[in-house]
Amino acid sequence: MSNYPTKVFLNDKILDYQDAKISVFDRGFLFGDSIYEVMVQINRNFFYEQEHLKRLSDCLQKINIDFDIKTISEKIDNLLEMSGLKEKDCLLYIQVTRGVAPRKHAFPKNVKPTLMMYALPFVLPDINQNHISVVTIQDYRWHRCDIKTTSLLGNVMANDYATKQGAYESVLIRDGKVTESSHCNIFFVKDNIVYTHPANEFILDGITRRIVMELCKNLNLELREEAIILEDIYYTDEAFLTGTTTQIASIRKINNHFFYKDKETGPITKKLQEAYYKLKQEKNT
Amino acid sequence: MSNYPTKVFLNDKILDYQDAKISVFDRGFLFGDSIYEVMVQINRNFFYEQEHLKRLSDCLQKINIDFDIKTISEKIDNLLEMSGLKEKDCLLYIQVTRGVAPRKHAFPKNVKPTLMMYALPFVLPDINQNHISVVTIQDYRWHRCDIKTTSLLGNVMANDYATKQGAYESVLIRDGKVTESSHCNIFFVKDNIVYTHPANEFILDGITRRIVMELCKNLNLELREEAIILEDIYYTDEAFLTGTTTQIASIRKINNHFFYKDKETGPITKKLQEAYYKLKQEKNT
Repeated sequence: MSNYPTKVFLNDKILDYQDAKISVFDRGFLFGDSIYEVMVQINRNFFYEQEHLKRLSDCLQKINIDFDIKTISEKIDNLLEMSGLKEKDCLLYIQVTRGVAPRKHAFPKNVKPTLMMYALPFVLPDINQNHISVVTIQDYRWHRCDIKTTSLLGNVMANDYATKQGAYESVLIRDGKVTESSHCNIFFVKDNIVYTHPANEFILDGITRRIVMELCKNLNLELREEAIILEDIYYTDEAFLTGTTTQIASIRKINNHFFYKDKETGPITKKLQEAYYKLKQEKNT
Repeated sequence: MSNYPTKVFLNDKILDYQDAKISVFDRGFLFGDSIYEVMVQINRNFFYEQEHLKRLSDCLQKINIDFDIKTISEKIDNLLEMSGLKEKDCLLYIQVTRGVAPRKHAFPKNVKPTLMMYALPFVLPDINQNHISVVTIQDYRWHRCDIKTTSLLGNVMANDYATKQGAYESVLIRDGKVTESSHCNIFFVKDNIVYTHPANEFILDGITRRIVMELCKNLNLELREEAIILEDIYYTDEAFLTGTTTQIASIRKINNHFFYKDKETGPITKKLQEAYYKLKQEKNT
């Protein structure tokens, strides 16, 4: 995932990635004043495409960026074609900024949003078989984490903190409670009940998070949208992360606490992973 | 202030502003992973230049961007020369990003920071004679406001909220207490005592803020670094904003509360404005 794509879609042009350049006066650059989205193509279909595009549209509305989402699918098609990825599993990154204007905090008028997209070859495993380690850190991000903005310094700092410790992710703690991780949502299981933070302004309401909630319903698993208190983590039975590229990842270790002795996966995590795999097969064949 | 400059310094080149373009893979664009600084030249000298450059350097260190600040003065000189502003009063904007890398949250290794700067003609009034209105809004920014980052969506949203109401600024309220405003610090006066929020992670420690604190000392004004509670605002005698381009701006009205009937300025605000003006004359002649 950490290579450059061959092509970049930028304001109705498809360019070689080296030529994809924006003005330094783009508000995405000056102010982090933009929204992004990531989705994956499996068997020639973007998984939950409408949900991803709706979230993009909703987030743009939340910050008053007036962007016409209707024509994006055609543009994505062209990009995939030119990138040689039309028939291949791939990851698509989309970013929409407020546009280019002289630097002034308040939103400028009559500015055309910048649309930047690229696609990379990317094959998801059927099931994420990694047994990941995570570390906890204070959640010092802003209080509108429901907005999928590129003003991400808090997230990248938290993610880098995990990386430096050899962990996959940082689990964020706000006011003593687990919110989410730097680019995933988090779930816990205790006494066969599945817990995750409610979808309010302190987390991003992940598409995979919503799918997992739906799967819990289908599997007759009790689900509670309740935040887990930091100290209670160590008394839970299972924990897993969810995300578009992470899918459902079993957490083996949090700080110095091991959920499993060896490379095991908890029974409910496993059930959900298998149901998620089935869903992908149904949806994308 | 809201025009484009003629020239932009970008990675050791000085370009016409239309040609100043960065890669869409610059982390300043993808993640708001960058630091900025603004300073003003008065009579051929940048006002408190060393303090501004030290803060830039300190903020870069806080987020582990390895940037050599030593050579920047020479680069600023070249930019001013090419911009025709060497001898003129002007505003300088500086932005340093972590650099260009394939998109991945954690900090990439061996990446060269991007340096972007531009200067605009800008003449500060001797004293800011505006009598401004401000409105209060929840402070939903992150908890590291001491870092002068371009991940500014929270600030621009707050600023836009003020602009939409015809106000100059939003005054931010966190946990019931006044922190600062979207791009200025705020001071209150009550019974001849000057109050401002302590310089912790909830405010940016403004250079003008520090100067005003120093002026209070020189003028034998008692100063307390204590946050004012929202409800107590209406019982204070004076209030003013401070900032590099705002200087010291008397607040006439906050929400529906008027500090002054007509276009007056409180006696302590006025004293500080005059002392600030004198300081500029001393420093820059």
